[in-house]
Amino acid sequence: MTLFRGLSAFPITPTDAHGRVDTGALDHLLERLQTAGVDSIGLLGSTGGYMYLTREERRRAIAAAARSVGGRTPLIVGVGALRTDEAENLARDAASEGADALLLAPVSYTPLSEEEAYQHFAAVAAATDLPLCVYNNPGTTHFTFSDALLRRLASVPNIRAVKMPLPKDMDFKAELGRLRQDTPDEFAVGYSGDRGAADALLAGADAWYSVVGGLLPEPALRLVRAAQAGDVAEVRRIDRHCQPLWELFKEFGSIRVMYAAANILSLSEAVPPRPILPLTDANCVRVTAALEALSGLMRP
Amino acid sequence: MTLFRGLSAFPITPTDAHGRVDTGALDHLLERLQTAGVDSIGLLGSTGGYMYLTREERRRAIAAAARSVGGRTPLIVGVGALRTDEAENLARDAASEGADALLLAPVSYTPLSEEEAYQHFAAVAAATDLPLCVYNNPGTTHFTFSDALLRRLASVPNIRAVKMPLPKDMDFKAELGRLRQDTPDEFAVGYSGDRGAADALLAGADAWYSVVGGLLPEPALRLVRAAQAGDVAEVRRIDRHCQPLWELFKEFGSIRVMYAAANILSLSEAVPPRPILPLTDANCVRVTAALEALSGLMRP
Repeated sequence: MTLFRGLSAFPITPTDAHGRVDTGALDHLLERLQTAGVDSIGLLGSTGGYMYLTREERRRAIAAAARSVGGRTPLIVGVGALRTDEAENLARDAASEGADALLLAPVSYTPLSEEEAYQHFAAVAAATDLPLCVYNNPGTTHFTFSDALLRRLASVPNIRAVKMPLPKDMDFKAELGRLRQDTPDEFAVGYSGDRGAADALLAGADAWYSVVGGLLPEPALRLVRAAQAGDVAEVRRIDRHCQPLWELFKEFGSIRVMYAAANILSLSEAVPPRPILPLTDANCVRVTAALEALSGLMRP
Repeated sequence: MTLFRGLSAFPITPTDAHGRVDTGALDHLLERLQTAGVDSIGLLGSTGGYMYLTREERRRAIAAAARSVGGRTPLIVGVGALRTDEAENLARDAASEGADALLLAPVSYTPLSEEEAYQHFAAVAAATDLPLCVYNNPGTTHFTFSDALLRRLASVPNIRAVKMPLPKDMDFKAELGRLRQDTPDEFAVGYSGDRGAADALLAGADAWYSVVGGLLPEPALRLVRAAQAGDVAEVRRIDRHCQPLWELFKEFGSIRVMYAAANILSLSEAVPPRPILPLTDANCVRVTAALEALSGLMRP
């Protein structure tokens, strides 16, 4: 299965000010990803603003994306929600609209116990036949998975992968080793994040769930293919070109930077869902410079 | 204005398994609060599970509560939402259904900047004429208000109060002093939480936004009235009776304990919204013991 392997590209979901998805603009972004040849598309991830969209708008986005990819590129769809029954419904919607896999984060308001998170994941995994990837994203969910919980989740039918952040000690390789030991052989462990992706891929991460890849698939693919070929020097070279962008991601959060980049590149006029604010003009100048650094990479 | 003063009682919102509000059960809980004479009712707070209810169910809960209180007790209604436009709509719904005031927390998925939080509050405050209380609840929102942001918010028209947690250094009195210095005289600073309420009230907090008061108004009112009368010994005595309950709140989170208590006291058969799980039978035995310790207080 190549579903949870290689480059998984996570685009923004362009909407109007009221949260209505602009399916034409979304289609345009997805076409770029398919032309570039990404390994999968991560629709309605954090950068895709899934938590800011209604069930109906998420359904429209999935239907539009399924039409756009037409089975050519696997479609992984975020189905996180605060209520378990709502996440189950979103999973069923995703399945009926043509998703190939699900992505689920332990979104919460009241902080969840491990048992509550486990039951939540088990219920959503059982709601459809689709393979499910555990979305470990403490930056937004503030939930910490223990090794024991991940081991337990990896044994749930349909749960086939995890999207892991850079650990606190920054040692993704050690974490990958522990997870591989604790989970079935076919369970895929991918890297969630952009800064640190070079190290994670060289350490053997099965996939890179990439924000930059959702808008600029070519440089992200080059990095993944170089890592897959074991070309460490090339991976490092590409990563250096990405540094200005990683710095902006760290400073402003990747979703704000990606909206600015999409605007600058005339790929979308959409702005983030409020309360999230667009970057100031001064900061957009810095995004332009970071994009220029990145495009230097693509020159022959 | 007594709205943001004294005991503000925050009940659970009984629902069925699908998140439909049981208005009859809610009415029963609210009747108890009014009979006891609480100073205000906090509907759809964190214990009231507001983030787990749809806009329509929140509207139904407000309408039912407004009918139940009939103008006798001020009704403060939680209108937090991830999107600014949704929170504005919830505020308008609350106003049209009969709320007397709004409570707003900076709920987020993508962590918010200070400017984003400010703009969010200013927009929701401007959506109606109702006075608004800032809900500072880092335990669920993971958002930290700076003193500068609170000062800025206190100068927004309609923003009249803040519901503050126990600070990290546990010194509510010092925090209260700082806030009083920084905000207009009529701006009310209340205490959010149950453990620590005795100290906060003795330190001069304008209000106690109380979870226990939402189910057991008599002991909570006794504590508030003793503090208002400056009877330190009585405040301490009541607080000692509450300790077993405060310990359970700390261990399990107050929402889970309050659902168990409501079940044990036959005041509601409702369970928390999943993924939140009811307490185990063994832990319910501990809740029963804590309720018994509290009822000892009420014996003549």
